[in-house]
Amino acid sequence: MHGIGFLQDLAVIMVVAGCTTVIFHRLRQPVVLGYILAGLLIGPHTPPFMLITDESTIRNIADLGVVLLMFSLGLEFSLPRLREVGIAALAATGVEVMLMLWAGYELGRWFGWRTTDALFLGAMMAISSTMLVIRVINESGRKHEQFARLVFGILVIEDVFAIALIAVLSGIAISGTIEPGQAVETIGRLSLFTVVALVLGLLLLPRLVDYVASFGRSEMLLVTALGICFGGSLLAAAAGFSVALGAFIGGAIVAEAQSVKRVERLIEPLRDMFGALFFVAIGLLIEPRLLFEYAVPVLLVATFVIVGKTLACTFGGLVAGNDGHVSLRAGLSMAQIGEFSFVIAALGLSRGVTSDFLYPIAVAASVLTAFVTPYLVRSSDRIADVANAALPRKVRGLMAAYANWIAGLKPVEENVAIAQMLRRLVVHIVINMALVVAVFLAAAWVKPRMLQWFPQWTAGDTIRRSVLWSAALVVAMPMLIAAYRKADALGMVLAELGIREGAAGARTYALRRVLGKMIPLAMLVILALLVMALGSAILPSHEVLILLLAGASALAAFLWRSFVQVHARLQAALRDVMQSGREGEN
Amino acid sequence: MHGIGFLQDLAVIMVVAGCTTVIFHRLRQPVVLGYILAGLLIGPHTPPFMLITDESTIRNIADLGVVLLMFSLGLEFSLPRLREVGIAALAATGVEVMLMLWAGYELGRWFGWRTTDALFLGAMMAISSTMLVIRVINESGRKHEQFARLVFGILVIEDVFAIALIAVLSGIAISGTIEPGQAVETIGRLSLFTVVALVLGLLLLPRLVDYVASFGRSEMLLVTALGICFGGSLLAAAAGFSVALGAFIGGAIVAEAQSVKRVERLIEPLRDMFGALFFVAIGLLIEPRLLFEYAVPVLLVATFVIVGKTLACTFGGLVAGNDGHVSLRAGLSMAQIGEFSFVIAALGLSRGVTSDFLYPIAVAASVLTAFVTPYLVRSSDRIADVANAALPRKVRGLMAAYANWIAGLKPVEENVAIAQMLRRLVVHIVINMALVVAVFLAAAWVKPRMLQWFPQWTAGDTIRRSVLWSAALVVAMPMLIAAYRKADALGMVLAELGIREGAAGARTYALRRVLGKMIPLAMLVILALLVMALGSAILPSHEVLILLLAGASALAAFLWRSFVQVHARLQAALRDVMQSGREGEN
Repeated sequence: MHGIGFLQDLAVIMVVAGCTTVIFHRLRQPVVLGYILAGLLIGPHTPPFMLITDESTIRNIADLGVVLLMFSLGLEFSLPRLREVGIAALAATGVEVMLMLWAGYELGRWFGWRTTDALFLGAMMAISSTMLVIRVINESGRKHEQFARLVFGILVIEDVFAIALIAVLSGIAISGTIEPGQAVETIGRLSLFTVVALVLGLLLLPRLVDYVASFGRSEMLLVTALGICFGGSLLAAAAGFSVALGAFIGGAIVAEAQSVKRVERLIEPLRDMFGALFFVAIGLLIEPRLLFEYAVPVLLVATFVIVGKTLACTFGGLVAGNDGHVSLRAGLSMAQIGEFSFVIAALGLSRGVTSDFLYPIAVAASVLTAFVTPYLVRSSDRIADVANAALPRKVRGLMAAYANWIAGLKPVEENVAIAQMLRRLVVHIVINMALVVAVFLAAAWVKPRMLQWFPQWTAGDTIRRSVLWSAALVVAMPMLIAAYRKADALGMVLAELGIREGAAGARTYALRRVLGKMIPLAMLVILALLVMALGSAILPSHEVLILLLAGASALAAFLWRSFVQVHARLQAALRDVMQSGREGEN
Repeated sequence: MHGIGFLQDLAVIMVVAGCTTVIFHRLRQPVVLGYILAGLLIGPHTPPFMLITDESTIRNIADLGVVLLMFSLGLEFSLPRLREVGIAALAATGVEVMLMLWAGYELGRWFGWRTTDALFLGAMMAISSTMLVIRVINESGRKHEQFARLVFGILVIEDVFAIALIAVLSGIAISGTIEPGQAVETIGRLSLFTVVALVLGLLLLPRLVDYVASFGRSEMLLVTALGICFGGSLLAAAAGFSVALGAFIGGAIVAEAQSVKRVERLIEPLRDMFGALFFVAIGLLIEPRLLFEYAVPVLLVATFVIVGKTLACTFGGLVAGNDGHVSLRAGLSMAQIGEFSFVIAALGLSRGVTSDFLYPIAVAASVLTAFVTPYLVRSSDRIADVANAALPRKVRGLMAAYANWIAGLKPVEENVAIAQMLRRLVVHIVINMALVVAVFLAAAWVKPRMLQWFPQWTAGDTIRRSVLWSAALVVAMPMLIAAYRKADALGMVLAELGIREGAAGARTYALRRVLGKMIPLAMLVILALLVMALGSAILPSHEVLILLLAGASALAAFLWRSFVQVHARLQAALRDVMQSGREGEN
């Protein structure tokens, strides 16, 4: 209807991509590379001519590819799975990502690049391609072997790391400089946003999704899921993070709905179509001239990725207590970079903080490493055998001893229960404090807008501040009380553990009671300081404040039980969602 | 990444559309109306403010909605089903569409509108909403009743009519005037395009789709299907037809693949998402002020549609030999307008041949009539009983007699076989002649471009013409020979039927042979004239022509058997595709 150009672009893309992917599939190469090649062929830099007429619309739509990709990663992610993956994968991934970040950064500096370029290179090299690895392992029929479980665990944690990396790099991209303090602040804001979005989202959205799903009309379920996906991206963007983060959190929230499998089936074709456009758009950006110019860095980066990722992941696996054979096979499977590297490179390019050459280098290196991955996975068993045989017996013995020691570290029986209880209490305290922070930040955000929203309300500034601050305090009250009560419980458990009966004799109980009360008292002080510090933007004058605090204390004492009930109900609702989501999946 | 505006638009659309559709679903109203309302709410004409930032991109994407809608209609269509529906539905639909076209046109003239406005109004009122009717009947659980079969048949034929209507109206929209000769020419070109696209498409694409499907990767199957869908739209647009036609033909071709069910499942979410955007974009265009201004025409058009469609369809059903009860129930089910009316209205608006008010009137009338449809379908049984009882006995007797007479007209046993054989022969002759026409048109299209494509080929004009013309003749030769042979067979059958043994006595065989040879001879003359007329653009000079014709005749005589084989193989391939497609579906 309105100009056929856009339709023509889509037709050209789909026809060319169809041909290249069929060829790549026949050559047993990743289909993703076929898309990139299609983009390169129809792009502006290759003969015969530019086949795309409306590049900006294609690029707009291709951006949806990232959003839908991240949303469907989120759908498959699910919070309980994160817990299952366990500390071991976390340790392995932490070691591996830090090593690769550092190696990439040093490589960039060695090339003589700018600091930001080197940093973005490090980030690109740190994250493997989840899509590629899962596909290759599934296709090779090895997904039930032990190394595959380790690989999937590392991939899940890497996704979380990648989200954090993208958030930090976005901050750097906006300010243009690297400051450690800023990075810490960004991660803080990121954690706050994630926790608040997850808690509020989990309370509301899985029920909503299941309600809509109960109508049995996939059309409405799809629109609802897309609303959550795009809405989440938009919220994240408004809060200063990447749209990828919002989409991922949205997916992780919907993953707790019972109808998640239906949502996945509906989202899949959309993800595939927009994902294809995304990868084709990447190909459009490649300038072959630049590739030849930067052939040396491309080859070096690719080699660094393959060797470095293998070694880093193997080392990470060993540190986490896996044996050498499993660790090396996992390392060989992770030796490539992929979609996240493109997202990171596109981020740097679009904000203008990285040089032009970084993008094609990232794409070329990812293409080279992705070509190698299937062969590495297929021959990983043999390579690991050879490597194991080549290792001196002493080293092998050392490694086995270390693995035994790590296995011995794992808490047993009674300790498991106590450790779980302690962890749950700490997590609850952190989540409740995050929610308190969010409430006061929201109030501070509302304050300058009050006059605008209620122009007819002409009360003085003091009254306005007082009302706002009191409202924030009342809303935050259930969380404050919950944090205090969890701290109380934590104090009791720790006191019992810390002061064993017999050691302190008759004074055991007295000592326990004192120590047990220290922690909730400290929590009370921390909470008070927190509320004061957070409220500084909206704090009324001293006299009023004291009156208000007195009133709030009275209210807290009077309605303590109600506040506890409110919180308990919310917590139960959250637990229900997360459990029923799991059940629905099985 | 590049500007968040587009993502924001999608988020707003999906969130608002999610809410309105849930409300409409709870109110048991068509979800489509929820989308339109969502568009109206976030559109530029309603408070609080314009929520859409990048209307042109949204509109570009919404156009994909029409394409995907038509493609998935095509997927469900399938050629053998068209044959099953039979002559009865064709007769009913022909009567009904003509009546509604005429009624709508007269209504528009009565309003004092321009001729084109009145014509577009007629076209909009002629076509019911396939999507709505199928949904409503499915949801009411009546889809196995007799009237539902008639309704589905009428809907299938109406889709074909709508496609032809859109093509004719496109021609009118381009030229801005209405000429009967032009309409006939458009329908001729339309038929030619449809036949050629179908034959070539059926020979190539279902095999391709099944080949890609055999890889078992839905991603590649989806990209292939989208390539066919968008490519077909583009071809149709390049040939001067609407993108809707191309998408529909593409769908009908893919429908013959064995993996059509998988393609349908993959396309469905895409169709739903872009369909939602399409209907929201319709809502964006509605100006409530215009609706109030044109309240009278809107109400009149809606009333005309409900009463007129019911009567016209009932009459059509009666003409086709159904009883009064079934016909009236079918008529009540068809009493609304829908997605095709929007496509037609958008066509007129975008080309500037219709007035501004026509679009909102079409949308408002469709909304009103769609609201009524579920109630009409639900109570159609009761209404038909009441109407039947109210009818004078004489009229009822007359109708029953007519239905009996029509039933008696249907050919029996031997006649069925002969009629089928004759029909098949005529269809084959028409298809082969259409293909010959296409070959020569293609050659004429190539001619002016030859110099451009082969600049190094500096041969004279005569040689170039001769080569091109000969090439066209050789390519067309199998079709020409096939047309001649089918005409021969047709002549034999007709002679046998026309001259019964005994009537002509001993001369029966001689007479039969003479008459039997008349038809292939006439065909030979027609073919020769056709080739000459078609080739006029590329015909070489007379002397060369005679030489070439002599050569061609020699070639035809010499390679007759090979040409017959080539044609037989192609025909067998086509038949295979259409039969295996059916089997795959069951």
